[in-house]
Amino acid sequence: MVKINPNFQKLPGNYLFSEIARRVSAHAAANPGKKLIRLGIGDCTLPLPPAVIKAMSAAVEEMGKKESFRGYGPEQGYEFLREAIAENDYAALGIKLAADEIFVSDGAKSDCGNIGDIFDKDNSVAVCDPVYPAYVDTNAMAGRAGDHDGDRWTNLIYMPCTAETGFMPEPPKRTPDMIYLCFPNNPTGAAATRDRLSLWVDYAVKNGSVILFDGAYEAFITDETLPRSIYEIKGAEECAIEFRSFSKTAGFTGTRCAYTVVPKALKRQGESLNSMWNRRQTTKFNGVPYIVQRGAAAIYSDEGKKEVAANLAYYQKNAAVIREGLTKASLSVFGGVNSPYIWAQTPGKASSWDFFDLLLNKAGVVSTPGAGFGPAGEGYIRLTAFGDAEATIEAVERIADSIR
Amino acid sequence: MVKINPNFQKLPGNYLFSEIARRVSAHAAANPGKKLIRLGIGDCTLPLPPAVIKAMSAAVEEMGKKESFRGYGPEQGYEFLREAIAENDYAALGIKLAADEIFVSDGAKSDCGNIGDIFDKDNSVAVCDPVYPAYVDTNAMAGRAGDHDGDRWTNLIYMPCTAETGFMPEPPKRTPDMIYLCFPNNPTGAAATRDRLSLWVDYAVKNGSVILFDGAYEAFITDETLPRSIYEIKGAEECAIEFRSFSKTAGFTGTRCAYTVVPKALKRQGESLNSMWNRRQTTKFNGVPYIVQRGAAAIYSDEGKKEVAANLAYYQKNAAVIREGLTKASLSVFGGVNSPYIWAQTPGKASSWDFFDLLLNKAGVVSTPGAGFGPAGEGYIRLTAFGDAEATIEAVERIADSIR
Repeated sequence: MVKINPNFQKLPGNYLFSEIARRVSAHAAANPGKKLIRLGIGDCTLPLPPAVIKAMSAAVEEMGKKESFRGYGPEQGYEFLREAIAENDYAALGIKLAADEIFVSDGAKSDCGNIGDIFDKDNSVAVCDPVYPAYVDTNAMAGRAGDHDGDRWTNLIYMPCTAETGFMPEPPKRTPDMIYLCFPNNPTGAAATRDRLSLWVDYAVKNGSVILFDGAYEAFITDETLPRSIYEIKGAEECAIEFRSFSKTAGFTGTRCAYTVVPKALKRQGESLNSMWNRRQTTKFNGVPYIVQRGAAAIYSDEGKKEVAANLAYYQKNAAVIREGLTKASLSVFGGVNSPYIWAQTPGKASSWDFFDLLLNKAGVVSTPGAGFGPAGEGYIRLTAFGDAEATIEAVERIADSIR
Repeated sequence: MVKINPNFQKLPGNYLFSEIARRVSAHAAANPGKKLIRLGIGDCTLPLPPAVIKAMSAAVEEMGKKESFRGYGPEQGYEFLREAIAENDYAALGIKLAADEIFVSDGAKSDCGNIGDIFDKDNSVAVCDPVYPAYVDTNAMAGRAGDHDGDRWTNLIYMPCTAETGFMPEPPKRTPDMIYLCFPNNPTGAAATRDRLSLWVDYAVKNGSVILFDGAYEAFITDETLPRSIYEIKGAEECAIEFRSFSKTAGFTGTRCAYTVVPKALKRQGESLNSMWNRRQTTKFNGVPYIVQRGAAAIYSDEGKKEVAANLAYYQKNAAVIREGLTKASLSVFGGVNSPYIWAQTPGKASSWDFFDLLLNKAGVVSTPGAGFGPAGEGYIRLTAFGDAEATIEAVERIADSIR
């Protein structure tokens, strides 16, 4: 008799965004005709940049002709894309990476979960609280989280990120083997300084830990003193894996392209994690569609860079609108600078699911309840800057009205 | 100190196709100007069908306009594709599947490996010998294979598939919990009859095993008495997961789209494997690009069906050319009917890597050494029908010359 993975039975309820989708569907069904504004999920609304469209159209045409058709590509991604990444996202910051330290994939969500394959089940794992749920759930599935006690996982190390500490985690008492960090942070919108990241890199090098650094929101950094990559920090190449995505940078949420950096200098127990990840990817993955990789590479053209910058400016404006509007409405608001996420305290100490329901029912605005990101997210909601500009303005007005 | 997954250290040498690529590169570097014919990897050479190109071009345009742009899609695939699959690939065979029993993914290779996430580490696993290496390597990584003794994995149950038994596995003495079956088979090209599959379904139902059925080559079945899906067999919905791919059907090797069927009737220890796989996919995957799903759906249009059939006929002709040519050259040849793979015995009991090297060096033809698929593959090579038609004819002539 086959045995199922018992860890799945420990997972509480639904994945956060599925639960939101369920409540929103139920609300929409009960209120036909009412216009909902969705600022919950961090999903882009601007179309793909023209340079990307042009490159993908050309690639589709190539696939239709025998002489230019492409079958299996390299599992790790085409050289043209890996090299464009190395040059534009790293060399431009003074970071030397070889193309084969970069692994192109279908998404940072996939990689943040799949990376667990190369680590032993018995490592201790630290996550920020609140945290992007995928880190937690994938480690729970792998058996690293222990049991869920209704509130927390017994074996996870939670690093509270609260207003008191500027939403920055502190090194925990029990030393973790694997440390998930995400800056600019999802969900709090907090961005880490060079000193902050240096502290973590030194800590990981000293303890032999590995930092799993989610840099999916790097493109939203505007403060030039902030690091854009963990590899700007001395020693990080010996202790950190970095996840990046084209989802929020260039609107690829439905087009699917991301990449993960595993430096060759990163070794544990005599093994190169770069080789291990390469083995994992060549065995369990077959690369990103050629068409999509051509689209991703186009964002590094002169034209593409300008268009991406314009889209980012549009979303940054939304972030400012939300931040300023909610502040004016007397909410305590964090993030929204160097980040597409706004993290707002619920008024009157309302629970975050209650405030989510209030915003859904009274304002017709979809947010994300902070409690869905972990116990320390209770008392907050997250709003995203990825909506339509006019709708965002309207949403802020509606929220202000609903809490007046 | 972080601990790596110790199972990676047990993996012998390189993944088969990487090793072939290495030898071919070395040969090409040493013999510049020599024309190599690649019949090793099962990679398509015909361009994508015009209906697919048309649909993808239109989808690229949609992504470039705000009103038709698509962000995150459902992790499980769009309804339009899941329904087209249910109707054309299943209802047409008399199999009733709901759209939510079908999970669209980026590849059967990914799914065949990732499916292990929902099963316990301590299940016993049976594989055919020879076998597509990804089943073995992914289970080894997950700790289900034990140790590699230089020849075999100590905990895997090998089911020898030899010429004597028509390359059909027999139920093993030790009862396996997870049973990987692939028909039409990669690498032997053997196709299973209804009676054969019934035997396995009854066996799995009786023992509570789960069959992981790889049907990636279903489109090559021409014999109408053969089952195209394991769900044509009574009871299979209670014991089998089926993997399908657009790679070989419609030339999607570089475009990446596949799907996995997990019937709702499939339960173990009171849990629905459909729900478990849904949880796995929503947590560790973010769906296939919208553009690609539109391309995949187009193969079910009238135009698309005709074009796919024409491409399949082209490859089937190649299979016949190889089968007949090698037979004429006095090789013992199997497969190549109902299958794109030709499985040929090496002459003079040569080892399969030696014969691979001979074909590479004397004929300039890339094959796949049978030993790379497992101990019982020794003494065979695999050739694929996915090459260019003229090149395939030339390859067969060159092979005949090289062994004369």
